[in-house]
Amino acid sequence: MTTPIASAFVRSQQRTAKQLRPVRLTRRYTMHAEGSVLIEFGHTKVLCTASVEEKVPGHQRGTGAGWVTAEYGMLPRATHTRSDREAARGKQSGRTQEIQRLIGRSLRAVFDLQLLGERTLHLDCDVLQADGGTRTAAITGAFVAAQDAVNGLLAAGKITASPIRDHVAAISVGIVQGTPLLDLEYTEDSACDTDMNVVMTGAGHYVEVQGTAEGVAFTRHEMDQLLALAESGIAELVQLQKNALAAA
Amino acid sequence: MTTPIASAFVRSQQRTAKQLRPVRLTRRYTMHAEGSVLIEFGHTKVLCTASVEEKVPGHQRGTGAGWVTAEYGMLPRATHTRSDREAARGKQSGRTQEIQRLIGRSLRAVFDLQLLGERTLHLDCDVLQADGGTRTAAITGAFVAAQDAVNGLLAAGKITASPIRDHVAAISVGIVQGTPLLDLEYTEDSACDTDMNVVMTGAGHYVEVQGTAEGVAFTRHEMDQLLALAESGIAELVQLQKNALAAA
Amino acid sequence: MTTPIASAFVRSQQRTAKQLRPVRLTRRYTMHAEGSVLIEFGHTKVLCTASVEEKVPGHQRGTGAGWVTAEYGMLPRATHTRSDREAARGKQSGRTQEIQRLIGRSLRAVFDLQLLGERTLHLDCDVLQADGGTRTAAITGAFVAAQDAVNGLLAAGKITASPIRDHVAAISVGIVQGTPLLDLEYTEDSACDTDMNVVMTGAGHYVEVQGTAEGVAFTRHEMDQLLALAESGIAELVQLQKNALAAA
Amino acid sequence: MTTPIASAFVRSQQRTAKQLRPVRLTRRYTMHAEGSVLIEFGHTKVLCTASVEEKVPGHQRGTGAGWVTAEYGMLPRATHTRSDREAARGKQSGRTQEIQRLIGRSLRAVFDLQLLGERTLHLDCDVLQADGGTRTAAITGAFVAAQDAVNGLLAAGKITASPIRDHVAAISVGIVQGTPLLDLEYTEDSACDTDMNVVMTGAGHYVEVQGTAEGVAFTRHEMDQLLALAESGIAELVQLQKNALAAA
Amino acid sequence: MTTPIASAFVRSQQRTAKQLRPVRLTRRYTMHAEGSVLIEFGHTKVLCTASVEEKVPGHQRGTGAGWVTAEYGMLPRATHTRSDREAARGKQSGRTQEIQRLIGRSLRAVFDLQLLGERTLHLDCDVLQADGGTRTAAITGAFVAAQDAVNGLLAAGKITASPIRDHVAAISVGIVQGTPLLDLEYTEDSACDTDMNVVMTGAGHYVEVQGTAEGVAFTRHEMDQLLALAESGIAELVQLQKNALAAA
Amino acid sequence: MTTPIASAFVRSQQRTAKQLRPVRLTRRYTMHAEGSVLIEFGHTKVLCTASVEEKVPGHQRGTGAGWVTAEYGMLPRATHTRSDREAARGKQSGRTQEIQRLIGRSLRAVFDLQLLGERTLHLDCDVLQADGGTRTAAITGAFVAAQDAVNGLLAAGKITASPIRDHVAAISVGIVQGTPLLDLEYTEDSACDTDMNVVMTGAGHYVEVQGTAEGVAFTRHEMDQLLALAESGIAELVQLQKNALAAA
Repeated sequence: MTTPIASAFVRSQQRTAKQLRPVRLTRRYTMHAEGSVLIEFGHTKVLCTASVEEKVPGHQRGTGAGWVTAEYGMLPRATHTRSDREAARGKQSGRTQEIQRLIGRSLRAVFDLQLLGERTLHLDCDVLQADGGTRTAAITGAFVAAQDAVNGLLAAGKITASPIRDHVAAISVGIVQGTPLLDLEYTEDSACDTDMNVVMTGAGHYVEVQGTAEGVAFTRHEMDQLLALAESGIAELVQLQKNALAAA
Repeated sequence: MTTPIASAFVRSQQRTAKQLRPVRLTRRYTMHAEGSVLIEFGHTKVLCTASVEEKVPGHQRGTGAGWVTAEYGMLPRATHTRSDREAARGKQSGRTQEIQRLIGRSLRAVFDLQLLGERTLHLDCDVLQADGGTRTAAITGAFVAAQDAVNGLLAAGKITASPIRDHVAAISVGIVQGTPLLDLEYTEDSACDTDMNVVMTGAGHYVEVQGTAEGVAFTRHEMDQLLALAESGIAELVQLQKNALAAA
Repeated sequence: MTTPIASAFVRSQQRTAKQLRPVRLTRRYTMHAEGSVLIEFGHTKVLCTASVEEKVPGHQRGTGAGWVTAEYGMLPRATHTRSDREAARGKQSGRTQEIQRLIGRSLRAVFDLQLLGERTLHLDCDVLQADGGTRTAAITGAFVAAQDAVNGLLAAGKITASPIRDHVAAISVGIVQGTPLLDLEYTEDSACDTDMNVVMTGAGHYVEVQGTAEGVAFTRHEMDQLLALAESGIAELVQLQKNALAAA
Repeated sequence: MTTPIASAFVRSQQRTAKQLRPVRLTRRYTMHAEGSVLIEFGHTKVLCTASVEEKVPGHQRGTGAGWVTAEYGMLPRATHTRSDREAARGKQSGRTQEIQRLIGRSLRAVFDLQLLGERTLHLDCDVLQADGGTRTAAITGAFVAAQDAVNGLLAAGKITASPIRDHVAAISVGIVQGTPLLDLEYTEDSACDTDMNVVMTGAGHYVEVQGTAEGVAFTRHEMDQLLALAESGIAELVQLQKNALAAA
Repeated sequence: MTTPIASAFVRSQQRTAKQLRPVRLTRRYTMHAEGSVLIEFGHTKVLCTASVEEKVPGHQRGTGAGWVTAEYGMLPRATHTRSDREAARGKQSGRTQEIQRLIGRSLRAVFDLQLLGERTLHLDCDVLQADGGTRTAAITGAFVAAQDAVNGLLAAGKITASPIRDHVAAISVGIVQGTPLLDLEYTEDSACDTDMNVVMTGAGHYVEVQGTAEGVAFTRHEMDQLLALAESGIAELVQLQKNALAAA
Repeated sequence: MTTPIASAFVRSQQRTAKQLRPVRLTRRYTMHAEGSVLIEFGHTKVLCTASVEEKVPGHQRGTGAGWVTAEYGMLPRATHTRSDREAARGKQSGRTQEIQRLIGRSLRAVFDLQLLGERTLHLDCDVLQADGGTRTAAITGAFVAAQDAVNGLLAAGKITASPIRDHVAAISVGIVQGTPLLDLEYTEDSACDTDMNVVMTGAGHYVEVQGTAEGVAFTRHEMDQLLALAESGIAELVQLQKNALAAA
């Protein structure tokens, strides 16, 4: 007996449930930053820059170790309807802070801060166009920008060994009308019952798992399905990171 | 062959890896709120109040549906060393916002907002003393305060059917020196490699799963161990909520 | 001829005009602070903690003298109807600032800052439940928390002589429907024509007198009656502080 | 036996202990406000304007009653050394808020808000030059500006009976080197042991009494001396208000 | 006698003193906004979006007239060294506010707000990469985005006549080492003695002239030279706007 | 053929188009500041103080050079209708920031910061009464206050040569109903099509030119007329500054 195909959610662009949207990584997208990557997950476009600053925040000062931190922003009209500019409102939303803390933790998970030395790597992830999955695109793109910045430090002789221990990438998964899907776009994200963001290393280990039941609570079986989808998607993203970094 | 017991992390108070700290739920802890519960997870003490307000935020106005929202705070000296008072600093930290958004989503997951009617249930979770697990204690206690407030609305005839569909409770799990542990206290939390907060319903379904590798990334096998620990802990907490609510 | 008894305001709990509400001082209410006292004036409950920090604000740096400062807060549902959380609103109200400045000045009045040495004593007074008189309870409780913290410094050999020169305690008095009353509870405070907060030392001298005509202005004779009431109430509070500190 | 004269504090300008500084009230100091008064207590100069706004804050809306409120500010270089501009710092200090709340309460004490009708009287008190006593000058001058604004409302037929029930004025008193003094100037204020601000009506009743021991606590006898000084000073100020208002 | 050619400032890319950098206008750069234009002045890249909102700010409500307003931002790493994110700092700098006010005024100068009807056109100008002239690029690009948004309103029948009365464009001019130059890039801007931003209509009339002596004050003769340079540059920009809008 | 006189705008007080309002400069208006000048342009009254601080902001530290900076404020009832107090609102408006940046740049244009030495000159310009032209009055008055402060530094031997290289003054010009006018008062400013603020040195060179078309864009011919008007007005103001400084 088979699950009737009719019950499954039909995705745009003939995408299957297990398929990523077209992913594009454009290095050196802007010229000033030590690393600058435009990452696209379908219509979602995030500009990730890595900036090296030769000092560390107070909690790391004098330890010999460096710091990796992230900030996230969304242009006011990256979205369907215009959102208020956070700089004009005078504060970052809880959502923004949550996302930038997640990006920072995810990147730090693959960094050896001692090898980075007493300097800070600032990762700025700014969404130019949003269509779901901005935080996972941001993590995946920020890794490539960080790698470019680290390569610059190595080339300049400022560090002698790379502080990057492994790749890190992220993807969203979710259950829409009963169907587990990989890499939700905006309309899917709005309709989903469960939404999960997964961050994994190149070795296939978990850095972050954040699952939320937007509608009904989800079962252990559903979680297993989602984790399997995410694992395969992230393996693909890590390969795409490698390809991008292998290019000149 | 067995894992040598000597390698396991030794917990304070002879606690086993699968054991909750002593949990205490004190209802009607303060007198003004519609629901007021002091919840203790060992030394962690959180005062959870539920306040009913007869209006809703803009996004719910005119829909006939209500809203459930949460705020979280920590007294300056709830912790080992004094932290700045957020009201004096003029803003809530990213951590505070993340936690109060989690509490709000967790409670909304078991509410039928239509049955609540156009009113808001404010859940205030204030940490009087912190020793790890404040957000999971807050969710578990806030549920009981919310139930008391809902009972008041039913008794007053303001609503005729309960908007609460199921219990919700939360617990932290983590891996400390290779040992998966239930309900981390502060010293365990500081030392852990992986930290996971799990929120589940009375029916045993997931509302939120937030796992973070603080040190090394964790494997799928470790995640399975942590989820199993959390499931048993939450079942116990739900029973304790029921006992507390059954008391006069 | 006598003033007809019928005209006097009748207080709850058969309290006479000159009677304090039941006062309870619970030391070591929380475990982390150097001093931690829950003070209750009837239903009013304020948690007062004293925290020692081994540095001073800029204006005292290099003087050899220490500093004593206070912050005051109210849990959102300490009151009859929920008030906004000041941390969420992003600023402390004028009332909050006025009260915390009063507490700080009152405690500094009995401290020899030179004997304290270059360290700061932070007094955090957080109202768990409000029923009038929160600022006077805060001052009276903060003194006991401060004494416990000072005793800790003496025991640890960090200071050799106590910087505390005398007790300090506070009470409110007011005129309700023509009757001068000691220690106003919330319903009395709301109805009073004149409200006065008095802070005095153990020696019976004034540290602060703040009288306000809420309705009609008050006469010199009325002020004399209020000051006399306050003097007797504070003498009682100082004795209760001594009893509490004498206990193990 | 007499108190030796040598022990008394010698004031500038041959002023006696019971003497006010030269007081000057200049009405119509600026041209736009409904009332505009420059008040001078010696070198202290405060510009007090009264502005009528034909609406009330939320808590008064629909009651038929009006509102009287005050704001206080100090030009950055009103003082000996430049202070930060509060608008640039982005918040008003606790001291500023305390003072403007005091001015507002003091003026409301002599207003019948029902007779004012649903409109707001804004009193802005801005210190152009400070030499002690700015808050008491502000209250005394704001009364005259308020009277001018009320006269305008009467003349325009917007109200038919004056909402002002009595005069209100304020003065500072204090004990400097053991000598009780009226109307402290800056050098006296800095040196004083006890500082008291007294606000009274034309009828000689108290609106506010705020006494603070800056150094040693003060006795009941000292308080009586201070209250007597204040009473005579305020009677003089009320007469000066009357003279100023009697002028064309 | 002639001015020796050797004294003139040599520009990068063989640019002459009267030459614009290569200008590129890319319409429909992002997909959600009603108008979306990436404008490039050499390395300076500004994303200008126009968003239509069907309501107006308070000051226009009920007038039948619309509003045009602008916001300006710079991605943290648009510049040589990373600047703080304004959303994280919690406020926009004076420079940012000055620029966005300038953009708003410039666009309103060519709008008939009555013909726009009671709706707001939000112009968001976000600098992706900065190399001098970001505010003039922003105005020039925002005009094209505004035109696209207006065309959308006309096409949808929401308005029947265009509210746009003329083109508007802007350019910077300055004196570097004695040589008047058109369209300063960053290194020129940093070195210039006088810097002027000029905003003109398609008809060649002035909307804004903002000239600043960064070093020595400038003469009337120099101003005339700068105005002439700006006039020719803006005529060119207006033509480029027309070409871009003529394309499909 | 002549331009019919009837078409010209008629000014209050029989003022001609080329005439300044009565200008008054009162030095030593307040007593604490190193320079303190009340400047009046007709009904516009601005108090300009210059304060010397013996340190510099971070960007100048260690350079041996000083800094000159300005802040601008408006008393709430300086205007026809009361404006919100910026200190109470918690931020300075864009207009305020724009003006104070202009004042600072204008004054720095005539200062040799090396000769000032590592100290800051703070210029505070506070509008007591507004009737148009507050920013130009502020610049013109701040120059005189700055000169007084510099004279004090010279007299005290803190500097040996004056850091002031030339006078600086400012005036507004505009086109009202087709007539170019000098020194706009409020009703003219509200009605004008073009508004220009011009800042010039004593030598007659430009420091700032800020022209804005409020209504229709303006032509080159109109700009020339405005610049000529401004030049003559500023020459007059510089002479008035000299007269004021020549007085004892």
